[in-house]
Amino acid sequence: MPRYRITIEYDGTPFIGWQRQAEGISIQGALETAISKFSGETVGIRGAGRTDAGVHALGQVAHFDLAKAWEPGRIRDAMNFHLRPNPIAVLSAHKVDETFDARFSAIKRHYVYRILTRRAPPILQRHRVWWTMRDLDAGAMHEAAQVLTGNHDFTTFRAAQCQAQSPVKTLDVFDVSRHDGEIVCRVSARSFLHHQVRSMVGSLKLVGEGKWTRKDLTDALSAADRKACGPVAPASGLYLVAVDYPKSESAA
Amino acid sequence: MPRYRITIEYDGTPFIGWQRQAEGISIQGALETAISKFSGETVGIRGAGRTDAGVHALGQVAHFDLAKAWEPGRIRDAMNFHLRPNPIAVLSAHKVDETFDARFSAIKRHYVYRILTRRAPPILQRHRVWWTMRDLDAGAMHEAAQVLTGNHDFTTFRAAQCQAQSPVKTLDVFDVSRHDGEIVCRVSARSFLHHQVRSMVGSLKLVGEGKWTRKDLTDALSAADRKACGPVAPASGLYLVAVDYPKSESAA
Repeated sequence: MPRYRITIEYDGTPFIGWQRQAEGISIQGALETAISKFSGETVGIRGAGRTDAGVHALGQVAHFDLAKAWEPGRIRDAMNFHLRPNPIAVLSAHKVDETFDARFSAIKRHYVYRILTRRAPPILQRHRVWWTMRDLDAGAMHEAAQVLTGNHDFTTFRAAQCQAQSPVKTLDVFDVSRHDGEIVCRVSARSFLHHQVRSMVGSLKLVGEGKWTRKDLTDALSAADRKACGPVAPASGLYLVAVDYPKSESAA
Repeated sequence: MPRYRITIEYDGTPFIGWQRQAEGISIQGALETAISKFSGETVGIRGAGRTDAGVHALGQVAHFDLAKAWEPGRIRDAMNFHLRPNPIAVLSAHKVDETFDARFSAIKRHYVYRILTRRAPPILQRHRVWWTMRDLDAGAMHEAAQVLTGNHDFTTFRAAQCQAQSPVKTLDVFDVSRHDGEIVCRVSARSFLHHQVRSMVGSLKLVGEGKWTRKDLTDALSAADRKACGPVAPASGLYLVAVDYPKSESAA
């Protein structure tokens, strides 16, 4: 059966998250419904990242198989037609080798977390950022964030319900910079624990406020104890931006 | 009476426009209600630009008088409290000289118009851009746009219901560039005719599609005839970004 890879943008606000559940509308479910509507086939799709309720995506990747072969551009356009009015769009579709797996072939996932720091609430960026009235020290946050890069036991920054077998992960990038009145965190790794980015950002915000030092963050990481984590940052500021695959697993 | 100048951000989508009318919720009306709620005073406010339904603002400016003197930061915070859940926020408030007039003291208005060019519909930018599936030639649009800068009779690009005394205006800037997969038009002038930016952008899009040449745009301008205008661009892509005032009229 031909396998297709799609790249997806969504506004996570109205969804229960990526994954299908007993109640509520999931992004996965909306995509599967759209596929079934144009193809008449019932499929299960697998995504690179199982984003939580309220988390957005600019470049989520998923794959699925269809019995019939379709021109990929038609899949993209037909899915976008049937996805309306859900805030989900298929940016591109490609035919891929049957060994491609959106989740297990991924070699890097890139997230962005946006924090708006000003007295006035977000308006054009409502549901798109974490709003804090206090200014944050982006330089101190960036410097402290380097404590988290590399190979570590991230138990402190892992949700209680996380299903990963090991809490040990390698964080490749954690950059914090100021951009158009926002604090923007860029985080990349092969894979993440559940709530890892939001847990790390929530703790780093304490550094930005001057409540935590770089040493406090180091101690929180070393504790390998969920209780050492700062408040978890809200979903609204988080974006799955892109997923990387080996060149050999690119579009066929 | 003390006079206050406020800078405002809003999402124009749910509003009938800036100006109070018999029916519907206007931005002006929502702001006046918020002022009355915290101050107990009934005021009329005047804005720098009377934006249409669906047009956004990142830096609209308005002024109003209150009998009682208030610390400007309290005005900002109290208005933001009472504006909820309207998608309007007061970014800053300043006490100004009683000669300051948000509309008549303005010496330059800056607008941005955003066009998203891709096959997939806008998702995170829904209601924030003009979406077109066809790619546009930003370079050709920029070059042609220079025909419009300078002092001209802009009758072609003026709505039938425009109330300005003269169709002659001086356009200072019309830059078109590509930015993150969007075509971004930046337009500045002391003042604009009704629908002028959207009329000019709609005609320029024809240039971007290769349907009009620079000469066609020149002819449309010279015709000084509304019938020579291309289709008017939708409100959703337009932003009032900033308003300039003489230095002497800045915050007192």
